[in-house]
Amino acid sequence: MSVTAAQGFTAAGIAAGIKANGKPDLALVVNHGPRLAAAGVFTSNRVKAAPVHWSEQVLRGAVVSAVVLNSGGANACTGPKGFQDTHATAEKVAEVLGGEFNAGEIAVASTGLIGVPLPMEKLLPGIETAAAALSEDGGEDAAVAIKTTDTVHKTATVSQDGWTVGGMAKGAGMLAPGLATMLVVLTTDADLDSATLDRALRAATRTTFDRVDSDGCMSTNDTVLLLASGASGTAPAYEVFAEAVRTVCDDLARQLIGDAEGASKDIRIEVVGAASEEDAVEVGRSIARNNLLKCAIHGEDPNWGRVLSAIGTTGAAFDPDRLNVAINGVWVCKNGSVGEDRELVSMKDREVRITADLSAGGESAVIWANDLTAEYVHENSAYSS
Amino acid sequence: MSVTAAQGFTAAGIAAGIKANGKPDLALVVNHGPRLAAAGVFTSNRVKAAPVHWSEQVLRGAVVSAVVLNSGGANACTGPKGFQDTHATAEKVAEVLGGEFNAGEIAVASTGLIGVPLPMEKLLPGIETAAAALSEDGGEDAAVAIKTTDTVHKTATVSQDGWTVGGMAKGAGMLAPGLATMLVVLTTDADLDSATLDRALRAATRTTFDRVDSDGCMSTNDTVLLLASGASGTAPAYEVFAEAVRTVCDDLARQLIGDAEGASKDIRIEVVGAASEEDAVEVGRSIARNNLLKCAIHGEDPNWGRVLSAIGTTGAAFDPDRLNVAINGVWVCKNGSVGEDRELVSMKDREVRITADLSAGGESAVIWANDLTAEYVHENSAYSS
Repeated sequence: MSVTAAQGFTAAGIAAGIKANGKPDLALVVNHGPRLAAAGVFTSNRVKAAPVHWSEQVLRGAVVSAVVLNSGGANACTGPKGFQDTHATAEKVAEVLGGEFNAGEIAVASTGLIGVPLPMEKLLPGIETAAAALSEDGGEDAAVAIKTTDTVHKTATVSQDGWTVGGMAKGAGMLAPGLATMLVVLTTDADLDSATLDRALRAATRTTFDRVDSDGCMSTNDTVLLLASGASGTAPAYEVFAEAVRTVCDDLARQLIGDAEGASKDIRIEVVGAASEEDAVEVGRSIARNNLLKCAIHGEDPNWGRVLSAIGTTGAAFDPDRLNVAINGVWVCKNGSVGEDRELVSMKDREVRITADLSAGGESAVIWANDLTAEYVHENSAYSS
Repeated sequence: MSVTAAQGFTAAGIAAGIKANGKPDLALVVNHGPRLAAAGVFTSNRVKAAPVHWSEQVLRGAVVSAVVLNSGGANACTGPKGFQDTHATAEKVAEVLGGEFNAGEIAVASTGLIGVPLPMEKLLPGIETAAAALSEDGGEDAAVAIKTTDTVHKTATVSQDGWTVGGMAKGAGMLAPGLATMLVVLTTDADLDSATLDRALRAATRTTFDRVDSDGCMSTNDTVLLLASGASGTAPAYEVFAEAVRTVCDDLARQLIGDAEGASKDIRIEVVGAASEEDAVEVGRSIARNNLLKCAIHGEDPNWGRVLSAIGTTGAAFDPDRLNVAINGVWVCKNGSVGEDRELVSMKDREVRITADLSAGGESAVIWANDLTAEYVHENSAYSS
């Protein structure tokens, strides 16, 4: 159902020949209104791809009539020519969609290898093909076309009281992942303005995409867009709408972690007893990024010492002698020292739950991560992977 | 020659039975004076092992008569009993060495698995064995006894004008590495006071051990000690002595990187054109810790896009459009975009040189790192590795 679950949207996903293997690599999502409201969140990497610079400008106008996305090339670190290519892409979409479309209202997103110019001679004709294929059932095709190292395409939908939030995502990690950039397009037919969309989207991404950390590497291309058509004629209350957006984002974020490159475990890290939410997130990220712990989880070794050594590198408020750690519900570390018998911990399931209790307050946060595997190394050490 | 290269020191390395495999696991280094000056640098991890807490207290007195080191157990996260064990270890050394030795002047260092109590019934008798084996030629044995996952023992010596600085090291990474904690003992017969040793040691570690980063993981046990006996009767000028200490530290640091767990490449990351040394170090560390880049280097893929994405996550002063990156001397990225042909880059050698030019000033720094390999994952995912 993806981006066409909500009324007022058409989409398409086609093979333009950008990928050498001939797989789908170009997606188009069009908002037919009556509203063209939109919000966007982008990578915080200071080295940003050309399409990120472009789309940030488009979002400043708070009107987005279409989104064009390509896999097979990130168009990052490609210089002034890369930005011209993004501009030409938006112009081409405006041209083929017809008179009422304006390039300045068309967002562009790209994913693939950094530092390689896009094959515009294939991409531009592909836009004509995609426009001809636009359909109210095109959401799945679009979700497939934005895949890179993803093994499955990712979609999610929430519907209630006559309105819908749906979306698609690609990527193998956090809002700031690695080569496998995260691209997300959400659509809704709720009748809400761009300021409301922006508030709901930022609230949702802060606790979903921002808290998955597959490999600690931040992309140059991450893009999350929320488009509203108003086609349902319904304007839900903010809190209800925001919760629907959060639910879709959470669903897609979990799908990203579940399909991360080479991963064999999904690790849910819950930090409790923190003096502040910021402390909880800092500690959670430090645990999530500890390569030694990620290896131990892969080996189904409940190595709580590596959790403590990761906590110890943070600036969060805690007393080392009051730290407690549970792995899959067994408190293997109590008061900074040996707790329950580690032999009681079973780690056979794909999901592994780590709870770190800082004993310093009442705040908490959940971060999702993956284990570190030989397959991850293999997948990311191959030439131009 | 290790810690007995300098006059005034004896050492021993024996098998006390702490390691299940029967390999050497206990080292003793004794300063016979006439001076007992000392300086120490310890892990900045806030979760510190019992021997680190103990030795930090000992160093406050600025007098160290002996150092006892064990492999086979980190004595970290072992609670009040762990600290008692460290205290008992120092007391035992004082007892067996005889009347003039005081437990409060005996440093203790441990390395091995976190969260497991030391087998004191083996360690304490081992101290008697080690004391009986003390010799002016015992430096090599001591260096062997502190190994854990090290494949070779590490020693270095500089001699000039009648005085010597020698040392031993174990570990697989930075001053703040992972499970394979870094322990270093340096000795000298130069006739210098503890304040001078402290100044020279901090200056040396800041640009050597502090700038190797094998896997981004910080240990609970890292310890670097410098002991002076004054036995040469020579008091070299500070600058000359400091340079000798820096040379020995640099040599040992490079040996650590060259023997890092599972590594197939040593990566020399030089950041130039930085606005400040702090910026250069921050950028160097960010590049050093990027898992995707570490995989690419393993695959001999000159993937400069991953270098740029790592630089982009820092707060250093730079303009993305003025970044330049060379890999093994080939400027594959110029002005933030495609530079010289990446096919010109050969990465067959173990050493890989990355130069990142921030075009923002005149400061620079060098960070050493390793690649990420399937062997690293394997070695660190085995149960209780």
